[in-house]
Amino acid sequence: MCENNNRKVTEYFEYARALVLEAGNTLREAKDVQVETKEDVWDLVTQYDLKVEEILVKKLKEQFPTHKFIGEEESAMTGRIPELTNDPTWIIDPIDGTANYVRKMPIFGISVALTINKEIVAGIVHNPFLNETYTAIKGEGAYRNGIKISTSAVTEIEKSNLNYELSLARSDKLKPMYMHRLHYLISIMEGLVHSQLSSPHFNNPFNDFRIRSLGCASIGLCYVACGYNDAYQCDGLKPWDAAAGVLIVREAGGYVCDSSVENLGKEFDLMNPNFLATASRALAQKYIAIERKADQERLSNAKCIM
Amino acid sequence: MCENNNRKVTEYFEYARALVLEAGNTLREAKDVQVETKEDVWDLVTQYDLKVEEILVKKLKEQFPTHKFIGEEESAMTGRIPELTNDPTWIIDPIDGTANYVRKMPIFGISVALTINKEIVAGIVHNPFLNETYTAIKGEGAYRNGIKISTSAVTEIEKSNLNYELSLARSDKLKPMYMHRLHYLISIMEGLVHSQLSSPHFNNPFNDFRIRSLGCASIGLCYVACGYNDAYQCDGLKPWDAAAGVLIVREAGGYVCDSSVENLGKEFDLMNPNFLATASRALAQKYIAIERKADQERLSNAKCIM
Repeated sequence: MCENNNRKVTEYFEYARALVLEAGNTLREAKDVQVETKEDVWDLVTQYDLKVEEILVKKLKEQFPTHKFIGEEESAMTGRIPELTNDPTWIIDPIDGTANYVRKMPIFGISVALTINKEIVAGIVHNPFLNETYTAIKGEGAYRNGIKISTSAVTEIEKSNLNYELSLARSDKLKPMYMHRLHYLISIMEGLVHSQLSSPHFNNPFNDFRIRSLGCASIGLCYVACGYNDAYQCDGLKPWDAAAGVLIVREAGGYVCDSSVENLGKEFDLMNPNFLATASRALAQKYIAIERKADQERLSNAKCIM
Repeated sequence: MCENNNRKVTEYFEYARALVLEAGNTLREAKDVQVETKEDVWDLVTQYDLKVEEILVKKLKEQFPTHKFIGEEESAMTGRIPELTNDPTWIIDPIDGTANYVRKMPIFGISVALTINKEIVAGIVHNPFLNETYTAIKGEGAYRNGIKISTSAVTEIEKSNLNYELSLARSDKLKPMYMHRLHYLISIMEGLVHSQLSSPHFNNPFNDFRIRSLGCASIGLCYVACGYNDAYQCDGLKPWDAAAGVLIVREAGGYVCDSSVENLGKEFDLMNPNFLATASRALAQKYIAIERKADQERLSNAKCIM
């Protein structure tokens, strides 16, 4: 980006960051609200979703009237996700990780990204309960509460820690893919697929491979960015779940690619987000090799692996 | 327990709690230690494991010279877990959730339990990074930082959130069980096993079943106790991973039973811990029905389910 554009992005980012912190204070209020029934819980979510939406979208629209918006609420109303254009576009999720939020579990976030010329140029993910704000501007690194963060140095899959979002395996299409890949990934822990995958990576007797599932895409991406996890995989998301976090991972030195069967390892598609986000490209390639093998076996339907 | 015994337990508990907080300060120091390589990481763990061990075990032994101890370090040295006796026995894990701790991810804990007459009578789980201390004395409720906590009100499996510790599926014996049960549990999200399990619980179109995997048994149990998760399942643990957390769940109103194939739904066995911990007994029964069905199908080897 030229310097003029950079200054503009920084101006947009700073304005949005202040709004996100303000919206975070609103969500923090909800921490003390007593919830009696499941119905109350969802009322609470709706109520706070709308409050955050109002703070973010309304004020950004007032400040930047020519900018466009892509978000859960608007898309739900129209039944479709707007097309991404070259105009500055805010991609917003007021509460990402709702199932955690309704339980007051501090793994959820407000996610705000900005694209210009269809490229993510700024990202903010804020966890109000832990008071942690992850941020990135394209080309300027990633930060948590203003302190620079970077992905882990782990490049071996048997030493890596994968956050795999199993709650997304909720369709006839995705479930077999998730389960088959998971079977292969879990097998790494015992080297069970050694004979199938002629890789030296399965010879290590000191096996530290771990699986996590945390339930929040934006925070999951930030946890790769700061080294809490070495890899994070999600299939079947929406743009607002991923946009801000993807930039934060990249700016922290990590790598993000497409994780779908059809495009495994190819460029991440913001408008149809299936992603594998890793600490490095080297680590991603090792995951891709295993998952490709799993997909091939499943699609050839050659045998039952359980 | 009679009043005299209660007073003693409270005295033991209070002494231990102060030590746990002191040990937590030591672990917090490690937050700022820069780690360059994997080898450094494990040196760091060993070093801090020993520091915490020294604070806890040494001081408890000095104060209560007749008490016994069961813990990872001692068991590793002798190659076996000591027998549980009627004597007051401290069951200690200096750092539970090591793989999270080495990444400085704040989901790990110091876990300390006390048994008398083979019964867990006090439990302390402390997360030093979040400064959260979960505690319970038998018959007196469960607390986080001194504030009473209780399990969630969720009794329907399709509205529940299960923390399933997939990293434990690391043996030929456990892996097929974990994978098969997981397949059945994930199917709940889409009602795919509806025809197989003639239960009204699969008819609800509004399906909120979620899966988590957090990587720390003691904290996972506390997260059921405080309602962050509705259920938590682990097979293949050691007594020190579970002892304190199991009491905290029970004192928070939750239910803990055995989760192994052989003893599914029976009484939890502290010295051979495989557990399903839930917000209530009603919820446990629903999980047990599904997992029993999954086990039966797997063992009958009737068909390939993936």
